Amino acid sequence: MSDNDDRRCDVPLHGDWEGDWESASVAQVGEAALLSVLAAQARARDDERVVIGSGDDAAVLDIPSATVVSTDSAVEDRHFRWEWTTPAAVGERAVIAAAADIAAMGAVIVGAVVSIGCPPSTSASVVAEISRGVGVGLRGLQASLLGGDLVATRQTVVTVTVLGTTAGRRAVRLDGARAGDVIAVSGPLGASAAGLALLAAGVERFPELIAAHRVPRPDLSQGPIAERCGAHALTDVSDGLVAELATMSQAAGLVFEVDSTSIPRPRELADAAVLLGADADDWVLTGGEDHQLLATFPPGTVPSGWTVIGRVADASGGDESVDRATVLIDGIPTGRRGWQSFD
Amino acid sequence: MSDNDDRRCDVPLHGDWEGDWESASVAQVGEAALLSVLAAQARARDDERVVIGSGDDAAVLDIPSATVVSTDSAVEDRHFRWEWTTPAAVGERAVIAAAADIAAMGAVIVGAVVSIGCPPSTSASVVAEISRGVGVGLRGLQASLLGGDLVATRQTVVTVTVLGTTAGRRAVRLDGARAGDVIAVSGPLGASAAGLALLAAGVERFPELIAAHRVPRPDLSQGPIAERCGAHALTDVSDGLVAELATMSQAAGLVFEVDSTSIPRPRELADAAVLLGADADDWVLTGGEDHQLLATFPPGTVPSGWTVIGRVADASGGDESVDRATVLIDGIPTGRRGWQSFD
Repeated sequence: MSDNDDRRCDVPLHGDWEGDWESASVAQVGEAALLSVLAAQARARDDERVVIGSGDDAAVLDIPSATVVSTDSAVEDRHFRWEWTTPAAVGERAVIAAAADIAAMGAVIVGAVVSIGCPPSTSASVVAEISRGVGVGLRGLQASLLGGDLVATRQTVVTVTVLGTTAGRRAVRLDGARAGDVIAVSGPLGASAAGLALLAAGVERFPELIAAHRVPRPDLSQGPIAERCGAHALTDVSDGLVAELATMSQAAGLVFEVDSTSIPRPRELADAAVLLGADADDWVLTGGEDHQLLATFPPGTVPSGWTVIGRVADASGGDESVDRATVLIDGIPTGRRGWQSFD
Repeated sequence: MSDNDDRRCDVPLHGDWEGDWESASVAQVGEAALLSVLAAQARARDDERVVIGSGDDAAVLDIPSATVVSTDSAVEDRHFRWEWTTPAAVGERAVIAAAADIAAMGAVIVGAVVSIGCPPSTSASVVAEISRGVGVGLRGLQASLLGGDLVATRQTVVTVTVLGTTAGRRAVRLDGARAGDVIAVSGPLGASAAGLALLAAGVERFPELIAAHRVPRPDLSQGPIAERCGAHALTDVSDGLVAELATMSQAAGLVFEVDSTSIPRPRELADAAVLLGADADDWVLTGGEDHQLLATFPPGTVPSGWTVIGRVADASGGDESVDRATVLIDGIPTGRRGWQSFD
């Protein structure tokens, strides 16, 4: 993926408020000027799909059926900490996290409505920077800002609702896996968890991992590609690989078998684990928020760039230790490997 | 409109969590059980427009173009106070406020995604009741819950993003007024502001006004009706009548002339104003959050049930005291009547 600077474009950051944004508070600048900054970041005027953009009561989209929608919130001190990230990264990350759910249906991302809550005393430049990050995220997805809302809250909350379209094709559910499918992921896993561990330890090395925690950059165009290649089931890895495999397995009533050595890992992961005395497997298998796509395909139909990590099997009788729907990592049911969320 | 009880249906309030919801916290019950309660309130399974409802990565809708979307947040201590309302009212009101923006495009409401933030110590029954209110609101609009998100925040925040469709017809913008149009509203104004004043004064009389503040119940089916009757411009009264008239006037570059005595008022309004020593005109002209619809129509095309309150005029020369785009209430430019937001 390109870096941040490549995706900037020349948009006004400061709307129609003439004062000093660094020293002014959100309350001083006011909602209208701040919303104009947000709207300017990813203007819909060049997007033929947007009939009416932000500024009227609601946005109006001319998109082919089916319409796809999902929402995601990022909350200060729960999903991010100001000492470990930047306002622009918070905005971009919120867009990507919400957009990943659209890609996870095999759909194309069209645009987003964004609600930003923050304390009235917040520097206006913080909201302008969050807006800039929202714009970077949307432009990187060829998507438009469809509307915004600014409210006063006790901590910063960014809620992004993303709209997409299947463009007349299938929506790929997460429960569609079939016995005999191969399991594949669209990119490396574990970077976000490793980056978080590095930030928590105060280690300033491994900038790619730290950057991946601040803003994951999965290739979400792989969602529609997976659909076209015939994916039977599709989701994104937001809660950790094992958690997503368990959800898909239970939804389909099938066994998901994964070879942990085949899971693609970020370059710096092993070195970072050694430095921190951490278990890189934990980051890869249970770390969340990478937002790579996870799918099952009929054998031979896996798209270029994806990595096969396992296969889907019927729960054939005999081994009573294996439930009908379960996840096996290297042949061992995950419940016995000790990942807490599933014990 | 029917009252709350008429619109309840037999849905589980307590999901698959078996404990005591009154004494349990949100943190104890967990997100999955709470989301199942939310999803159960306005299930999409009987709605042919919803191909995939909540539970997958995103919801999928088969709706005719154009798709309409808007978002609105209700924040504790900013938009509502627990001592003056109930969790169910907060949920229902959030849905109606967001849905009014869809109706204000002349569109039909299809469904909503709802993000609820609250402190982890919040009683699970509070979230269950907010969810019930969301369900009452959606069912009253023949709309479905399309997805939900629960996050831990320091104060309660309910963000509702509503989707609708123009069903192949026009979207009615707020800037489309033409000289010669008549201005009309779909229902009485001032009830919400009066209800708020009564609550603030601790007066327990005039239950209709207090109920209207807790949950406004405009007839949002009047949005598509206004479109079919040929409305040139349409919005909803969320910020107060004068504020909305000023927005429409400026957007169209025309003069909006209103006769204040023609504005429909709630039955109890005059008596409440006398009791509180308040000015009922202030509630009617500047009180927000009634969410009635406000439109301009060609003369003779005003739908049944709407009330004509004025007319749209060109700013013909001569009187320099009247700007090209302005609002006249009883012939007096609003800037001179002293409503603070426009001074």
